[in-house]
Amino acid sequence: MDNLLKNINKAFESKVRLGVMSLLMIHDELEFTRLRELLQVTDGNLASHSRALESAGYIQVEKSFVGRRPNTTYKASPEGCKAFQEHLNALENLIRQGR
Amino acid sequence: MDNLLKNINKAFESKVRLGVMSLLMIHDELEFTRLRELLQVTDGNLASHSRALESAGYIQVEKSFVGRRPNTTYKASPEGCKAFQEHLNALENLIRQGR
Repeated sequence: MDNLLKNINKAFESKVRLGVMSLLMIHDELEFTRLRELLQVTDGNLASHSRALESAGYIQVEKSFVGRRPNTTYKASPEGCKAFQEHLNALENLIRQGR
Repeated sequence: MDNLLKNINKAFESKVRLGVMSLLMIHDELEFTRLRELLQVTDGNLASHSRALESAGYIQVEKSFVGRRPNTTYKASPEGCKAFQEHLNALENLIRQGR
């Protein structure tokens, strides 16, 4: 057997990051508050995981103001889409093995 | 949409734990050294993740001696098999969403 874990990407290990990436694959962009609501996580939790994804170059973050309120929008980058697809393929292989 | 992450089990977040569980689903039992070889991880890394799975009740560990050498064997517990199957189902749902 080739190494089972080879293409599993550590950047997507956490369930919050899996959730963020999945949602950004099916939505062109999402606001911070909407992501937080869909994933049912705390502000701090979402902020720290999205910072990690941003540092890896997997998501793009846009900050703006709506009136006086700061508004943060997330988008998957092309590299993020590619890396996440590879991760999903690796998970799929692992699931096949595990069954 | 129902919460995407609901059935994703934090105990299986790390890729080493995913690997250990997958292998113990297809092998009745595996020795520590064999697991380490299949997953290509360090002693310390495998030891700490398998301790976590053991504490969660997901794997059973048996220590014995082969001559003077300590020998450690791992096995998935019935709860571990069940929990891992649920986790794989949740990952499958997430993969479907992410595509």
